[in-house]
Amino acid sequence: MRLSIKVGGHLLYEAKELAVERLKGYAATIRKIYWMGHGLSVVVGGGPLARWLVEAARRLGCSEAVCDEVGIQVSRLNALLLASLLDDVAYPVIPSSHAEAKSALGSGRIVVCGGFQPGQSTVAVAAVMAELMKADLLVVATDVDGVYTADPKEHPEAKRLAKLSYRDLERLVAEGSAEAGTFKLFDLVAVKVMKRARIPTVVVDGRDPNVLFKVLEGEEVGSRIEP
Amino acid sequence: MRLSIKVGGHLLYEAKELAVERLKGYAATIRKIYWMGHGLSVVVGGGPLARWLVEAARRLGCSEAVCDEVGIQVSRLNALLLASLLDDVAYPVIPSSHAEAKSALGSGRIVVCGGFQPGQSTVAVAAVMAELMKADLLVVATDVDGVYTADPKEHPEAKRLAKLSYRDLERLVAEGSAEAGTFKLFDLVAVKVMKRARIPTVVVDGRDPNVLFKVLEGEEVGSRIEP
Amino acid sequence: MRLSIKVGGHLLYEAKELAVERLKGYAATIRKIYWMGHGLSVVVGGGPLARWLVEAARRLGCSEAVCDEVGIQVSRLNALLLASLLDDVAYPVIPSSHAEAKSALGSGRIVVCGGFQPGQSTVAVAAVMAELMKADLLVVATDVDGVYTADPKEHPEAKRLAKLSYRDLERLVAEGSAEAGTFKLFDLVAVKVMKRARIPTVVVDGRDPNVLFKVLEGEEVGSRIEP
Amino acid sequence: MRLSIKVGGHLLYEAKELAVERLKGYAATIRKIYWMGHGLSVVVGGGPLARWLVEAARRLGCSEAVCDEVGIQVSRLNALLLASLLDDVAYPVIPSSHAEAKSALGSGRIVVCGGFQPGQSTVAVAAVMAELMKADLLVVATDVDGVYTADPKEHPEAKRLAKLSYRDLERLVAEGSAEAGTFKLFDLVAVKVMKRARIPTVVVDGRDPNVLFKVLEGEEVGSRIEP
Amino acid sequence: MRLSIKVGGHLLYEAKELAVERLKGYAATIRKIYWMGHGLSVVVGGGPLARWLVEAARRLGCSEAVCDEVGIQVSRLNALLLASLLDDVAYPVIPSSHAEAKSALGSGRIVVCGGFQPGQSTVAVAAVMAELMKADLLVVATDVDGVYTADPKEHPEAKRLAKLSYRDLERLVAEGSAEAGTFKLFDLVAVKVMKRARIPTVVVDGRDPNVLFKVLEGEEVGSRIEP
Amino acid sequence: MRLSIKVGGHLLYEAKELAVERLKGYAATIRKIYWMGHGLSVVVGGGPLARWLVEAARRLGCSEAVCDEVGIQVSRLNALLLASLLDDVAYPVIPSSHAEAKSALGSGRIVVCGGFQPGQSTVAVAAVMAELMKADLLVVATDVDGVYTADPKEHPEAKRLAKLSYRDLERLVAEGSAEAGTFKLFDLVAVKVMKRARIPTVVVDGRDPNVLFKVLEGEEVGSRIEP
Repeated sequence: MRLSIKVGGHLLYEAKELAVERLKGYAATIRKIYWMGHGLSVVVGGGPLARWLVEAARRLGCSEAVCDEVGIQVSRLNALLLASLLDDVAYPVIPSSHAEAKSALGSGRIVVCGGFQPGQSTVAVAAVMAELMKADLLVVATDVDGVYTADPKEHPEAKRLAKLSYRDLERLVAEGSAEAGTFKLFDLVAVKVMKRARIPTVVVDGRDPNVLFKVLEGEEVGSRIEP
Repeated sequence: MRLSIKVGGHLLYEAKELAVERLKGYAATIRKIYWMGHGLSVVVGGGPLARWLVEAARRLGCSEAVCDEVGIQVSRLNALLLASLLDDVAYPVIPSSHAEAKSALGSGRIVVCGGFQPGQSTVAVAAVMAELMKADLLVVATDVDGVYTADPKEHPEAKRLAKLSYRDLERLVAEGSAEAGTFKLFDLVAVKVMKRARIPTVVVDGRDPNVLFKVLEGEEVGSRIEP
Repeated sequence: MRLSIKVGGHLLYEAKELAVERLKGYAATIRKIYWMGHGLSVVVGGGPLARWLVEAARRLGCSEAVCDEVGIQVSRLNALLLASLLDDVAYPVIPSSHAEAKSALGSGRIVVCGGFQPGQSTVAVAAVMAELMKADLLVVATDVDGVYTADPKEHPEAKRLAKLSYRDLERLVAEGSAEAGTFKLFDLVAVKVMKRARIPTVVVDGRDPNVLFKVLEGEEVGSRIEP
Repeated sequence: MRLSIKVGGHLLYEAKELAVERLKGYAATIRKIYWMGHGLSVVVGGGPLARWLVEAARRLGCSEAVCDEVGIQVSRLNALLLASLLDDVAYPVIPSSHAEAKSALGSGRIVVCGGFQPGQSTVAVAAVMAELMKADLLVVATDVDGVYTADPKEHPEAKRLAKLSYRDLERLVAEGSAEAGTFKLFDLVAVKVMKRARIPTVVVDGRDPNVLFKVLEGEEVGSRIEP
Repeated sequence: MRLSIKVGGHLLYEAKELAVERLKGYAATIRKIYWMGHGLSVVVGGGPLARWLVEAARRLGCSEAVCDEVGIQVSRLNALLLASLLDDVAYPVIPSSHAEAKSALGSGRIVVCGGFQPGQSTVAVAAVMAELMKADLLVVATDVDGVYTADPKEHPEAKRLAKLSYRDLERLVAEGSAEAGTFKLFDLVAVKVMKRARIPTVVVDGRDPNVLFKVLEGEEVGSRIEP
Repeated sequence: MRLSIKVGGHLLYEAKELAVERLKGYAATIRKIYWMGHGLSVVVGGGPLARWLVEAARRLGCSEAVCDEVGIQVSRLNALLLASLLDDVAYPVIPSSHAEAKSALGSGRIVVCGGFQPGQSTVAVAAVMAELMKADLLVVATDVDGVYTADPKEHPEAKRLAKLSYRDLERLVAEGSAEAGTFKLFDLVAVKVMKRARIPTVVVDGRDPNVLFKVLEGEEVGSRIEP
């Protein structure tokens, strides 16, 4: 099976501290999946550190393009840390573009990425990686257990959707914002790439990295989005 | 004044033939604007040649990511032709990423680009260039004379909008498609970057390159989109 | 056995249309040869699309160096299409220089190239690749069935040569031209590289991709050039 | 006058917060110096954010080489923020190696750098930049007012040295440590490069960016190290 | 006036010693020509050091492609030395390909190159540079005073040709060899590029760098090759 | 076992002649060690050719940074020769930075390097490579049989140390010099990287390449430096 996994940056931090144990947990889980014979790429978000630095950049008066670059740099730092825990099985360099990612995929190793370009979220990068590697599944690990009809942190009455279509997702996302660092779970670029690539996606609660094994075994966890 | 100009690829072709005279016309107009002291970047689309090759790539069974790459390569070829007509004033290399474009802008010369990355239209590239160079205006030259309430080629009753907000534009675009080679005038990424960068945009009929002078002089042509 | 294969660009087009079936045929044949355990690099020419765009570039007044670049870009596009049909066995990036090609060869995968540098034909690139990979044979697939005493399309009385020496070839080629896009089957750089690398070359009619199997089995097809 | 300036990373942070006003102050001062006609390169350290992330990397069990890379990435992030405040006068890309820095210096703009390579401090980078640009002076802005006979924060009886030789400096530094993120003011590589380049260095209290004007006017501030 | 100058590598060495005074002389002459307002690129050959190392590489059993690389590296080393004497006026990085050379030319500074690619002589590089910069003249500085009917060192009865056509040159060169390190004054690639670019070439005795001033003043020195 | 090997440049030359037989001997030994299943990276120094060219660069008046670059280029040339003798097992490109070296290590092949950056010796590069590949041992092959209490060529009474600590080594090295081309066996950067990476090092007489087998078998040869 070929998997493109997005690990939300907020999973890698607790407040402003790096969540050392969870990072180690992800490294262990991902290594096992690789040794089980699955093909893997992992895209890591920027998380609270990115948000914090992007806010500082805004206070400095930086343009949104620079704010995006700041967020991308932080996501690449996070990717570097994860890749260095996987240095026996991961490609040792963090690709900084689609072209470099293609070349890294040619190595047969796990490719770990952060962001690529201003104006593109790390979920969109994971969708592009899925397309590049002809993935069977895109897994989005975040800190809620699926896609809700509204943001469950603000709307307690929101309902989780066990299954939805890309069309449904698109409608939900259409109100999102492209301001750097505030990308929600999905943005429209990601949805469009996912849709055109016809890759099924599952959104899962990644606070426990073992959820990835459940996904592999076909257990029904989180929300599943079908082409 | 600083201008980021998008020249639609379909303006550079007549059927499958390169529109040699129009390309020369754009080169002459752009050179004059540069010598008048304006800062300029130009992003060129792929046009019918891109569309034709993308269709062939689909018949071959290539993934959408590869189709995007094909379209990007063609837009870069078109950019190479335009840049070589401007070799006294343009940066001599066509940047292939946001990072290379930043470096090219540092030269003080006209930067000519095609596409950058799969999943991102050339209009989005023009919006990113506008953001990078802190442009005063984004000009989109196409083969209709502005933004209509619907595609005027299919809906003769559609009306041209002389002025609209980004919010309006977003609503109009929301039905677009991310399939490679069929990007319409705008896609949602472009709109979001334009919106966050707070750069006014004008959409003009670029069949006559001299329209760029009218834009510079503040004449009311085409449609104007305000932040 | 290690093979450096040149596939003439004109084989990949029928008039201005991409020859979709033949491209698929080449992909299938090359994949089989790879799985038989042979080492392979493939260099693809620009074909009619290159010629057409180079002519347009000349009408624009572009220098021959730019015309060469246009031709190279098209050959790289063709290489991208072929490589994407071989994405399970080919190196995923099209090298743009001798140095990148060396690095790609280190992956153990099939390396697919187009042109590298202005002033150098794609046959010369195939000869350089042969030298780099220490190939046992350079195969040139074209639309005639070998080397003739003159261009058989213009001189029906020309005779095919089953065997010839590099010295003979050099004499035949000496009248060729370096104008971009009009490189004939061989140019002098290619001949000199082939000669110094002491690599035998066969020139075959590549309209049927299966001819490559015949070459592998040692059948006498086309013309054989010995050091 | 040609100046290579090292701005200590700890000057850019207050506890874990970015010191927004001081960064703006440095941008304003550096711009003025540039417009006064001086040649400038600026190297920025990683500061507390680097230290914090390097500590986390150590807890993860990363090698010192990875820890160095983490520190370098953070210093480059800091450089990106400073460069984006100087986007009218600074080279827009942060060089990641000696070769890229050379190319950036060719632009005539202010070159802003962070670290280059594991095992090399940002002070050593500033010394290399001084050598590359044939600087008249290397300025090291830190949070103490010069070189002391011992660390003044730990040894209140330590004395500031108004003038010293490289030989003296070497003796003082010889007890330093190469562990990532704990580089003190100078390390031995930096001292050796400074010494061989025969460039005078001043160490100043950079909490007020205006100290740079005093240095330019030849005022005796901080400590001066002579070849 | 725009000049592409080839400085023969053998001019930069006396036996195995670097000809320090002549290198300084070339730097001084080239700087003056630049300050007179002329556009300049300089391509430097490998000279005796290249030949010596290429011979050693052959004794090691290296392929001709590696031998070429060795020669290219040495020519680039020579170019680095010349460029560092011109560090106030020359582009600080030695381009390693046609694409990098284009980008360097965009800086408005003197571009100093060595070789680019195996299979291409440094004279061919100078011809490509001439084409890229639309040079008015290609100057080839060597250790004889022009083009002779045969190698004057071996054939004392050979006659110098004050004027010749590219056709004539081609005939003279046709007997040359592509073995690495033994490229004579011209090779066929160079001649073809020169011919297609329609750039007049003068071949002069460069043992005294001042000959370049004579060329600029239109004096009849050496041999002139006309398109 | 994972080994980072430094081969002193002076071992590859006899006076100014390349030591062809010793280079072949090193290639044969290194290939055997690779096929025995060990992981390997090899860093080659510049040797007498580097020293000779650096002296010429000094006579030209080049800065120490340029002198370093000259030495690095020569060490990379030496690395190219060694790598081309190992072209069946070595990564085909010589990395020019830490980042490229990381990527090369990902190939599973022998990585052959010269120098990386001005101000850093090739021994320091070997220490960085050891750290990157998590080597079990750093082997320094030179032309004396270990670390002495003083330079044995100048002080015949100097004693060889069979075992020493990094602290001891540091004390011995502290008097070294950073002038380009005169780096002695170790410099302080190298020692600090070795020390922090906690990698044991052996210094051996490399005039006979077979000494590497003795090291592998655990024989007590040369000097051993323990963390």
